Amino acid sequence: MHTIKLDLKERSYSIIVGNNIMKFLPGYLKKLRLGSDAYIITNAAIKKRFGTTLENTLKQSGFSVRFKLVPDTEKSKSIEMSSKVIEDIARYDLGRRIFIIAFGGGVIGDLAGFIASVYKRGIPYIQIPTTLLAQVDSSIGGKTAVDLSEGKNLVGAFYQPRLVSSDVRFLATLEQRQIRAGLAEVIKYGIIKDPQLFSFLENKFNAVLARKLSALEFIVRRCSSIKAGIVQRDEREEKRLRTILNFGHTAGHAIEAASNYKRYNHGEAIALGMLIATGISERLNLIEEKVSRRIEELIKKVGLPTRINRISLESIINAHYRDKKFIGTKNRFVLINGIGRTKIVENIPLEIIKTEIRKRFTAI
Amino acid sequence: MHTIKLDLKERSYSIIVGNNIMKFLPGYLKKLRLGSDAYIITNAAIKKRFGTTLENTLKQSGFSVRFKLVPDTEKSKSIEMSSKVIEDIARYDLGRRIFIIAFGGGVIGDLAGFIASVYKRGIPYIQIPTTLLAQVDSSIGGKTAVDLSEGKNLVGAFYQPRLVSSDVRFLATLEQRQIRAGLAEVIKYGIIKDPQLFSFLENKFNAVLARKLSALEFIVRRCSSIKAGIVQRDEREEKRLRTILNFGHTAGHAIEAASNYKRYNHGEAIALGMLIATGISERLNLIEEKVSRRIEELIKKVGLPTRINRISLESIINAHYRDKKFIGTKNRFVLINGIGRTKIVENIPLEIIKTEIRKRFTAI
Repeated sequence: MHTIKLDLKERSYSIIVGNNIMKFLPGYLKKLRLGSDAYIITNAAIKKRFGTTLENTLKQSGFSVRFKLVPDTEKSKSIEMSSKVIEDIARYDLGRRIFIIAFGGGVIGDLAGFIASVYKRGIPYIQIPTTLLAQVDSSIGGKTAVDLSEGKNLVGAFYQPRLVSSDVRFLATLEQRQIRAGLAEVIKYGIIKDPQLFSFLENKFNAVLARKLSALEFIVRRCSSIKAGIVQRDEREEKRLRTILNFGHTAGHAIEAASNYKRYNHGEAIALGMLIATGISERLNLIEEKVSRRIEELIKKVGLPTRINRISLESIINAHYRDKKFIGTKNRFVLINGIGRTKIVENIPLEIIKTEIRKRFTAI
Repeated sequence: MHTIKLDLKERSYSIIVGNNIMKFLPGYLKKLRLGSDAYIITNAAIKKRFGTTLENTLKQSGFSVRFKLVPDTEKSKSIEMSSKVIEDIARYDLGRRIFIIAFGGGVIGDLAGFIASVYKRGIPYIQIPTTLLAQVDSSIGGKTAVDLSEGKNLVGAFYQPRLVSSDVRFLATLEQRQIRAGLAEVIKYGIIKDPQLFSFLENKFNAVLARKLSALEFIVRRCSSIKAGIVQRDEREEKRLRTILNFGHTAGHAIEAASNYKRYNHGEAIALGMLIATGISERLNLIEEKVSRRIEELIKKVGLPTRINRISLESIINAHYRDKKFIGTKNRFVLINGIGRTKIVENIPLEIIKTEIRKRFTAI
């Protein structure tokens, strides 16, 4: 088991990464004095697979346990669902000392974190991410949010968890498509910050896709360290440091939105977004063509999409200008100077963006 | 005009207090660089009375202005209303640099502050309080919240405004009942922290009730200083310092809740709550009877209630145990040692609380 410390003064916390580490949870919880009553937000599938183990682990150490199931869909990330869950917590809360456990993937982590941030102006919560995407990215750093019909993540807070416990054992039963979605973010970390991780993926992608736990553990640990390092220097994305984590996300979010969050999952859209950002980087002479090729090849190897299907250019551009990463009417892209080196560029001419999106429409 | 600085490092802000100070607003806003587009949350009555002045003041200095009206009722402090307003902001937000102005009393301040805290994980907001209660208390300190059917203020955030501008001119047209409601909190400041303010009220209550602006300005300034001093030492109510601001609020909230927030407004319920807390203090030999008498006399003089009508003891006690100020099943009261001196006491026997509530039922 590895422990990564995310240092944010009084809001510091540990990220523990390992195989079969659930048994260590009660010790951490007691040391942190978060409360005696665990309110676990999860979905039915996760509860069925791993709920009993978590419940027994907690109960044996004297915690009370209550599960709250939310549907396994992005729609659960809504204000309405937040209200429903908060009302349930309020009814349950009499005389208790509640802390929240976000037990699931990105949707549950975002929802549970947001609920923890606003209930009684903030109660403690921990993250137990169960997908690769949540373990390498969304469970760390305290960005919580729910969606509005006007856009994703428009309502939320920066609110740090008190612990992140990433047990790679949960990943063994994930669907291949979810592993791939997580890998998109892993590739992102390689591109923006870690050439060694990028090479590791080029060489060992088969072990990862076969869910070899040692390979997964290496990846989760590496990505967690990178993310922790960035978040502790720029918690609220004010210093352009945390911004680099959005590599691939500007166009990626637009593609997700343009397809109504149906055709591509987050990781798949981010893969396409990274290719577009890479294309723009090449067009602006920031990288050579061979770097673009390496990136496209890795994305293809792990089974992520490299071409956009059945979405119009116009709908992507429209969605793009609604993204909350825009400052006023300016666009802002995270581009790259090479594997491991980023450069933030504003006001990229719309024609260049369009050309690079259009390239992704070409039949292979 | 007086400026009070609330020092919270990077979250510091000024509270400006004076008569006819709206004209200074654009200068402050520009210095603070909050954005170019003012989104003003208010109600129809306030907009009608003071909206044009605010609008012209801002527009003449180059700000764009959009008013959002919410109904003038506690019901506006809901998650549903927050969602509606946030959706309106999101639709309006394309290419803008929005900051929020909370322009009204406590309900609008709490709602607008909450919205500012969660929209895009936090955008800037300022408070322009228009009631005595909001000027002396709720506009300062960053406690924002909306209500649930399960209880008041159950959803919210600590989120500081960037400026509080308290123009006592707004108070000249307030209903007498609202002046009185604000005076309950003013009396509270006197009791917990400021014997001089308490004496001032004993002597000058008539000038205040007649809305003499110099008397109101003195009061708002004094209370703002006290509140700023407390908040900057205990922003998130973690050190038992900010807790003293809850004097009268434990029983007060229970009385409000037991009457379904209809019979008594907040200030009136707090007046009754202060009398109950004073009664408990006397019963525990923390104060002499003459102190209780002085407090009851002042409350009576300004026209606030000293007796509870048509609410059952049982419903008050039940509401009391749902209050979010309880830690587990323990109760916690802010009591007093004398005018200007507080003592926080936990686990007061229920019988003592009941006796003191019962005393307030007695016919005069």
